[in-house]
Amino acid sequence: MDSIKSVAELDTPSDLKEAARKKVAESVNGLVADAFALYIKTKNFHWHMSGPHFRDYHLLLDEQAAQILATIDPLAERVRKLGYDTIRSVGHIAQLQTVKDNDEDFVSAQDMLKELIDENKKMGKKLRETHGLCDDADDVATASLLEEYVDATERRTWFLFETTRTKK
Amino acid sequence: MDSIKSVAELDTPSDLKEAARKKVAESVNGLVADAFALYIKTKNFHWHMSGPHFRDYHLLLDEQAAQILATIDPLAERVRKLGYDTIRSVGHIAQLQTVKDNDEDFVSAQDMLKELIDENKKMGKKLRETHGLCDDADDVATASLLEEYVDATERRTWFLFETTRTKK
Amino acid sequence: MDSIKSVAELDTPSDLKEAARKKVAESVNGLVADAFALYIKTKNFHWHMSGPHFRDYHLLLDEQAAQILATIDPLAERVRKLGYDTIRSVGHIAQLQTVKDNDEDFVSAQDMLKELIDENKKMGKKLRETHGLCDDADDVATASLLEEYVDATERRTWFLFETTRTKK
Amino acid sequence: MDSIKSVAELDTPSDLKEAARKKVAESVNGLVADAFALYIKTKNFHWHMSGPHFRDYHLLLDEQAAQILATIDPLAERVRKLGYDTIRSVGHIAQLQTVKDNDEDFVSAQDMLKELIDENKKMGKKLRETHGLCDDADDVATASLLEEYVDATERRTWFLFETTRTKK
Amino acid sequence: MDSIKSVAELDTPSDLKEAARKKVAESVNGLVADAFALYIKTKNFHWHMSGPHFRDYHLLLDEQAAQILATIDPLAERVRKLGYDTIRSVGHIAQLQTVKDNDEDFVSAQDMLKELIDENKKMGKKLRETHGLCDDADDVATASLLEEYVDATERRTWFLFETTRTKK
Amino acid sequence: MDSIKSVAELDTPSDLKEAARKKVAESVNGLVADAFALYIKTKNFHWHMSGPHFRDYHLLLDEQAAQILATIDPLAERVRKLGYDTIRSVGHIAQLQTVKDNDEDFVSAQDMLKELIDENKKMGKKLRETHGLCDDADDVATASLLEEYVDATERRTWFLFETTRTKK
Amino acid sequence: MDSIKSVAELDTPSDLKEAARKKVAESVNGLVADAFALYIKTKNFHWHMSGPHFRDYHLLLDEQAAQILATIDPLAERVRKLGYDTIRSVGHIAQLQTVKDNDEDFVSAQDMLKELIDENKKMGKKLRETHGLCDDADDVATASLLEEYVDATERRTWFLFETTRTKK
Amino acid sequence: MDSIKSVAELDTPSDLKEAARKKVAESVNGLVADAFALYIKTKNFHWHMSGPHFRDYHLLLDEQAAQILATIDPLAERVRKLGYDTIRSVGHIAQLQTVKDNDEDFVSAQDMLKELIDENKKMGKKLRETHGLCDDADDVATASLLEEYVDATERRTWFLFETTRTKK
Amino acid sequence: MDSIKSVAELDTPSDLKEAARKKVAESVNGLVADAFALYIKTKNFHWHMSGPHFRDYHLLLDEQAAQILATIDPLAERVRKLGYDTIRSVGHIAQLQTVKDNDEDFVSAQDMLKELIDENKKMGKKLRETHGLCDDADDVATASLLEEYVDATERRTWFLFETTRTKK
Amino acid sequence: MDSIKSVAELDTPSDLKEAARKKVAESVNGLVADAFALYIKTKNFHWHMSGPHFRDYHLLLDEQAAQILATIDPLAERVRKLGYDTIRSVGHIAQLQTVKDNDEDFVSAQDMLKELIDENKKMGKKLRETHGLCDDADDVATASLLEEYVDATERRTWFLFETTRTKK
Amino acid sequence: MDSIKSVAELDTPSDLKEAARKKVAESVNGLVADAFALYIKTKNFHWHMSGPHFRDYHLLLDEQAAQILATIDPLAERVRKLGYDTIRSVGHIAQLQTVKDNDEDFVSAQDMLKELIDENKKMGKKLRETHGLCDDADDVATASLLEEYVDATERRTWFLFETTRTKK
Amino acid sequence: MDSIKSVAELDTPSDLKEAARKKVAESVNGLVADAFALYIKTKNFHWHMSGPHFRDYHLLLDEQAAQILATIDPLAERVRKLGYDTIRSVGHIAQLQTVKDNDEDFVSAQDMLKELIDENKKMGKKLRETHGLCDDADDVATASLLEEYVDATERRTWFLFETTRTKK
Ligand SMILES: [Fe+3]
Ligand SMILES: [Fe+3]
Ligand SMILES: [Fe+3]
Ligand SMILES: [Fe+3]
Ligand SMILES: [Fe+3]
Ligand SMILES: [Fe+3]
Ligand SMILES: [Fe+3]
Ligand SMILES: [Fe+3]
Ligand SMILES: [Fe+3]
Ligand SMILES: [Fe+3]
Ligand SMILES: [Fe+3]
Ligand SMILES: [Fe+3]
Ligand SMILES: [Zn+2]
Ligand SMILES: [Zn+2]
Ligand SMILES: [Zn+2]
Ligand SMILES: [Zn+2]
Ligand SMILES: [Zn+2]
Ligand SMILES: [Zn+2]
Ligand SMILES: [Zn+2]
Ligand SMILES: [Zn+2]
Ligand SMILES: [Zn+2]
Ligand SMILES: [Zn+2]
Ligand SMILES: [Zn+2]
Ligand SMILES: [Zn+2]
Repeated sequence: MDSIKSVAELDTPSDLKEAARKKVAESVNGLVADAFALYIKTKNFHWHMSGPHFRDYHLLLDEQAAQILATIDPLAERVRKLGYDTIRSVGHIAQLQTVKDNDEDFVSAQDMLKELIDENKKMGKKLRETHGLCDDADDVATASLLEEYVDATERRTWFLFETTRTKK
Repeated sequence: MDSIKSVAELDTPSDLKEAARKKVAESVNGLVADAFALYIKTKNFHWHMSGPHFRDYHLLLDEQAAQILATIDPLAERVRKLGYDTIRSVGHIAQLQTVKDNDEDFVSAQDMLKELIDENKKMGKKLRETHGLCDDADDVATASLLEEYVDATERRTWFLFETTRTKK
Repeated sequence: MDSIKSVAELDTPSDLKEAARKKVAESVNGLVADAFALYIKTKNFHWHMSGPHFRDYHLLLDEQAAQILATIDPLAERVRKLGYDTIRSVGHIAQLQTVKDNDEDFVSAQDMLKELIDENKKMGKKLRETHGLCDDADDVATASLLEEYVDATERRTWFLFETTRTKK
Repeated sequence: MDSIKSVAELDTPSDLKEAARKKVAESVNGLVADAFALYIKTKNFHWHMSGPHFRDYHLLLDEQAAQILATIDPLAERVRKLGYDTIRSVGHIAQLQTVKDNDEDFVSAQDMLKELIDENKKMGKKLRETHGLCDDADDVATASLLEEYVDATERRTWFLFETTRTKK
Repeated sequence: MDSIKSVAELDTPSDLKEAARKKVAESVNGLVADAFALYIKTKNFHWHMSGPHFRDYHLLLDEQAAQILATIDPLAERVRKLGYDTIRSVGHIAQLQTVKDNDEDFVSAQDMLKELIDENKKMGKKLRETHGLCDDADDVATASLLEEYVDATERRTWFLFETTRTKK
Repeated sequence: MDSIKSVAELDTPSDLKEAARKKVAESVNGLVADAFALYIKTKNFHWHMSGPHFRDYHLLLDEQAAQILATIDPLAERVRKLGYDTIRSVGHIAQLQTVKDNDEDFVSAQDMLKELIDENKKMGKKLRETHGLCDDADDVATASLLEEYVDATERRTWFLFETTRTKK
Repeated sequence: MDSIKSVAELDTPSDLKEAARKKVAESVNGLVADAFALYIKTKNFHWHMSGPHFRDYHLLLDEQAAQILATIDPLAERVRKLGYDTIRSVGHIAQLQTVKDNDEDFVSAQDMLKELIDENKKMGKKLRETHGLCDDADDVATASLLEEYVDATERRTWFLFETTRTKK
Repeated sequence: MDSIKSVAELDTPSDLKEAARKKVAESVNGLVADAFALYIKTKNFHWHMSGPHFRDYHLLLDEQAAQILATIDPLAERVRKLGYDTIRSVGHIAQLQTVKDNDEDFVSAQDMLKELIDENKKMGKKLRETHGLCDDADDVATASLLEEYVDATERRTWFLFETTRTKK
Repeated sequence: MDSIKSVAELDTPSDLKEAARKKVAESVNGLVADAFALYIKTKNFHWHMSGPHFRDYHLLLDEQAAQILATIDPLAERVRKLGYDTIRSVGHIAQLQTVKDNDEDFVSAQDMLKELIDENKKMGKKLRETHGLCDDADDVATASLLEEYVDATERRTWFLFETTRTKK
Repeated sequence: MDSIKSVAELDTPSDLKEAARKKVAESVNGLVADAFALYIKTKNFHWHMSGPHFRDYHLLLDEQAAQILATIDPLAERVRKLGYDTIRSVGHIAQLQTVKDNDEDFVSAQDMLKELIDENKKMGKKLRETHGLCDDADDVATASLLEEYVDATERRTWFLFETTRTKK
Repeated sequence: MDSIKSVAELDTPSDLKEAARKKVAESVNGLVADAFALYIKTKNFHWHMSGPHFRDYHLLLDEQAAQILATIDPLAERVRKLGYDTIRSVGHIAQLQTVKDNDEDFVSAQDMLKELIDENKKMGKKLRETHGLCDDADDVATASLLEEYVDATERRTWFLFETTRTKK
Repeated sequence: MDSIKSVAELDTPSDLKEAARKKVAESVNGLVADAFALYIKTKNFHWHMSGPHFRDYHLLLDEQAAQILATIDPLAERVRKLGYDTIRSVGHIAQLQTVKDNDEDFVSAQDMLKELIDENKKMGKKLRETHGLCDDADDVATASLLEEYVDATERRTWFLFETTRTKK
């Protein structure tokens, strides 16, 4: 399975140049896969949280997971509007995701937060890189969407980061 | 990775008998994995739909996907309340899912509907089997949740099935 | 017209056994017919109420009628999901209903309440019997729906019964 | 059972002339009976719909049924405010209705729509005739209610009619 | 003070004929005065209600009073749109009202209801008469407003009337 | 008609001393009458407003009228809770009101505002005096209500006053 | 292009007589065109307003424009329900409109209000004339719609008119 | 167990003088206990109501119970803000309550209302007495809260009292 | 006072067998008493909470208390629908409750959570036992209600339990 | 009439350079004209739709028309904030619009969809070109608005395009 | 700049005595300045919070800041209603505020909470003192406003205080 | 106090280059300070407004003040997400603000509007300059936020400017 396709039957017309447009689509598909993977990882920690801050962190991760999930449909449909195909299955996600699965039996609250900081930082970087590709392709609509998601991702990083500080 | 665990650090107390309770937890985790996989498959078809009924089916599959997604958090948290661990990652889902990935370049609207009928019928059957395990375990809370999901799944099957009939 | 049918063109697929499933469908169709009939009877009394408690009873019967009406669509669609046909016409209702029509010119408020107690008590019994048929058919979805309607029916009976007591 | 009555115990006072007022009441009771019958027929088709437009038509008929049902209480209470008795039972409806029951095992989507066009056209005509009776009786309140229902009925006819055209 | 005026400084332009238009304005001003007076009378009884149906009747009269009050602004502004002056003061109301003040120390619940039946019946008649003047003046906007108020007034009469019946 | 009464049939029990309590009730009834009169006067000006600030002042007076009207029911019911009778009719209001009727054919916008400043200032003073009577009677509930109304009245005065200033 | 048509492919069935019905449709199409033109003219003035009452008039015209726009869909769909064709394009509007375009570089606030008074007065007259055609055609549904729009149009005229008075 | 305490670990800082402040806290704790007891008594009668006014009184007592319950959290938290401990258990309530338990098998509707009049009258008196203690302690925040509750309590008494009058 | 009664005046009719039905009613009354006691205990800890997690735990216990309180009215009314009497007073609760009062001056946050885990675990067990009695009595309506409450109770236990873990 | 003006009386101050700013204003006025024209064309097809997908496409075009209309006020006001004049009349629109009027008697559903694809594609291109002008003018506010509209326009194109595919 | 003024152009009329009234206005202006300063300080800590309770305290301080901000407009407008001038600028606030600025680079969470306890305690005291001035001036409206703010301030102190306790 | 800091304890991680990022943070802090200052200045004029347009301008400035305030939290939190410190106190604001305090005793309405035009124009310019810094720093999230605020600021300028024109 190729990483990006424009199947004849599904080629929504677009006046953007094909090469640059394809790069945007390819990069956004990677973001969709990572959003799915990070959503599940955040829910994993939401479900297996423990310790005195249980409710506080359980709620925090639920809010963050919901925020990540809400980016998937708009991003995937951007790819379709550009005339390419988007994510199709769990296997497809596994193939494209860069978020690391964590299937450990027990992860402490502190470790959960730290791992999510790393993932969100990486996601922020990729969102910004994709924004660069949009500029090259003159795809202002995708760019504007990404701007909002960069802010939300940096907000998640900030919350998680401040929470891991040990100095009370 | 075992299919089901009760890690010492995460063993919520329960007065239900362990053997029967474990079977419920194991079966519900399978349902969670399938709900994720069917959610993504339904969104796949929502995104790659085409033809004269585009808007109608696009909306139908969006409603069905949202309905499936909404079952995941309550089911996963039932497992946690029973003292076991639940889904942790994309890989974990891939390992447990029975829903088949479809990464074809082009699927006609009619074939999409037919494939979803099959998946929803299988899910309905598994929900009912898990309900039987709840009865054995005296787990009335999980059972009640499943009753509602069986109805919703049968509704999805009914809608999809009537839509595929050729006689106008 | 048979009391229950599974027309070839309308046979939603179901993994429940046919004999038991048919009994549920047949019984639920009777409930739908009775719900229609009791809805109209309750509105009849809502419209022809009189006496010093006019507003109080007029409102009471409006609430009860609305509650009864709201059971019809879910029940009828349960029958369709089971692969059978459901109610089709006023004549069909008349044929299946067990609720008695009351076309009297004048019914006193007290007699209205008493007559509705009887009808609701009968309906409660039939709902419970249908629930038994669901258990035999392993139809947990219909069963769960009925549980809620039994409670609502017993609430109507209780309100009507206490209201008819003469001791102020 | 007479078609219209003004029972002594239920004779709301009115300054409208009795003969003309009685004609309005009689005609409105016929409309109430037909609204019930058309509501059930529309729900019949909502429940037994099939084919590629299933969801679209299923929703269309649900909206139309809800719109028809909403006319019943205001119309029946107009009769009561005029000092006459209104609908009392399923049998009473069967006696007064002019809508034809359709208990066929299978009706195609196209035939359903066509049959409903006829029923709604007839209802539109009767609503307009009753409006004429209101003018004779100087019953401006009933008249104003009917004006709104004529528009809604013509809207149902329009939607159904355009949908049956074969030229795509 | 004249009963109706078209002060030079306040003569909103209108293409309706002056004589007929003036009659409508005059009649509507009488309705505004009566609506004020009946509002206060209904509140009087709302406040001085007593006996076993206290809450039921207290609420009934509050709903009726609110309904009457809501007619005042639209009616008064109709007069202004017709180019005439409308109600100006308590004294103006007292001069035009036909509703009878009841300053009795004690009025039984039954007598309250009966007195309000009479007032509402009279108001219904006047609303209908004013509607006739609108027809003569081709003032369809005022007419349409009155149609709605006739229905509401007949509803109040019906509720009050049925409540005064002694046969329980 | 006495200015205040405690009719045997309507004497809600109260542990407040009778003499002081009666003074509160008497004063509050005056406030209710004035609220009615000021409500009508404010609506009078709302309806007969003219000039370049028409919409602005029309809205201002509508808001102020609504605010005044909303004080009537709570105040009148305070009197009833104190065991006395309250306002009964237009005539009763005319007898107790201190607000002056203005039936002039034409009042300029500026004069309307000035006249309302005076009335609201007087009302503010009376509210404060009644608050003093509540303190004497230990009637903390009426007092608390009045505190809120004093603020609202001073707000009306402030808005009206600033609006009449000529220096732009 | 004819002013009104009943194309075979779009002839919604109607029991109203054709000649009178056609006159209604023709007249309503003119109203739709004028509503479009007046909407744009009102927005023109909303956008190019200036002077000390800027915000007040800017808001006033926005409310009026929104009110005018809201009449277009119901009126156009009345024509379709009567079996005729309705407005199709900017050119079609330009052909039917009687509202005069004003493309002046600068229009003072006072002149804007005056010009809108004229247009709204003319629209009120045409609405009333079309109502007369409805009466001839027995088209009570269109008539009822127009009654409401006449009132709204007269309200716009009243507001605009009072605002242009110079006497403060 | 003392009636009021300021445990070292729970002594919220306050600038109010300790003696007077303690008296307020002590008195408010009594009010909390009585609110609990009266809430349960009102629900007792809500549940065991009977007779022709069943629905009316059932609703009345539900509203009153909800109103009483809503006072508990604000009052208890006032005590905590004053630096004292508040209610801890059913036994604690039983110890402090002055409301009398009524465990009779059957209480007529009339007797229920009468008993609640007494309890609410007593509560009104205690609220007023506590308000006096607040004045002594300069505790304006608690005082303001109580003013609102006195009004609500007098409203409950008024409703109950008027309802028990026998003269219809 | 007996633990359960069916007073002649309050015997709502029921077709369930008396012996089994009585057992359900008796058990549900115990649940109502415990819900009251656990509600107060949870509020006790909500009010006397302290330490660095004050707001988090204060909110947690408020949510849990509200959830417990919401079970009381439906459960008590189930008993009434079964034809028996339910809870009547604080004394009645004290007699039936199995929840232990805790009137200690100071309880640490950690001890509060632990004590509530125990109470909720016990409540979960009793809810499940009562569910068994419902099955014996064929009381599907009470059973369905309890299923929902078992889940909510297990959720409370889970939250409290995870929060007490010391491993951060 | 010039295509763009900055009348002295309407020159909102701006720190953006005049030449580039004027180009933005000119281009945005063209977009406003086209939005009006496309709104009317989309409503044209919404009103004259026919065939088996009537309701589905009727709703689709209503949503798209509403979305287009909602861009007009923000765009026109951007021009005013830049210090230039914007659209004034139907004639002004006709002069600037590039959308083609279609006044054909009958247009098939398929042809309607195809024609709208073309218009929306052209609009998308113009929006993007105007965005380029904003970049030159450093007008970030207009640019941000356009980004959102580009996405919405591409969404309309995508929906319309997929719907025209013939492969079911 | 004087601390309080009654500029001739802004002297809203008031019947309260000038000397006492001026003292109230002066004191309220101090409260407004302190509310601004405490709002900013609370937001300062909301923004620079860190450590394991980050989200919990971040939310707590956001709620408290919003509560403080909401007091500013009502208080400032009380001063205007009393006929005096209120806060005009950042410099004016700096001149009147008694809240201490904290511009430290790093403040630990614990120190933040402690500092806010002190500020809120001081504010509570000042609110109470101003309430005393209102009593002297017979300004019941300002007094009532302050009563509510005292409670809210004591609530903030309580929450902050309990949170700083070290005993878990 | 430095104008911008990245304290070790508060250095949220960021992949943006430090020098450019610092410039953005520094500039945004200036915007936060100015937003506070302009908020207070706008409220100053909201409170001290006078003259015939009092209500209109009082409301206008309230809307504008609320719009300005709403920018503060998002901007300040952008600085924190970039790893720098933000505003801490009234003194800090005074140090950074460029908005000029106006503590004049009396400012005419016209002068208020003119002064606010200047401040808003300056703010628009600074927002645009900061947007330029964001482009240099590749900080697309802050940039997108600023785009929205530029539009809102230009809207405030436009409203204020048009309002000051003398030609009516
Ligand atoms: Fe952007
Ligand atoms: Fe269940
Ligand atoms: Fe169930
Ligand atoms: Fe009409
Ligand atoms: Fe009409
Ligand atoms: Fe108070
Ligand atoms: Fe009408
Ligand atoms: Fe107070
Ligand atoms: Fe159940
Ligand atoms: Fe942008
Ligand atoms: Fe107060
Ligand atoms: Fe952007
Ligand atoms: Zn989607
Ligand atoms: Zn969850
Ligand atoms: Zn349905
Ligand atoms: Zn009804
Ligand atoms: Zn009005
Ligand atoms: Zn009331
Ligand atoms: Zn439409
Ligand atoms: Zn609380
Ligand atoms: Zn209840
Ligand atoms: Zn606008
Ligand atoms: Zn304000
Ligand atoms: Zn924030």
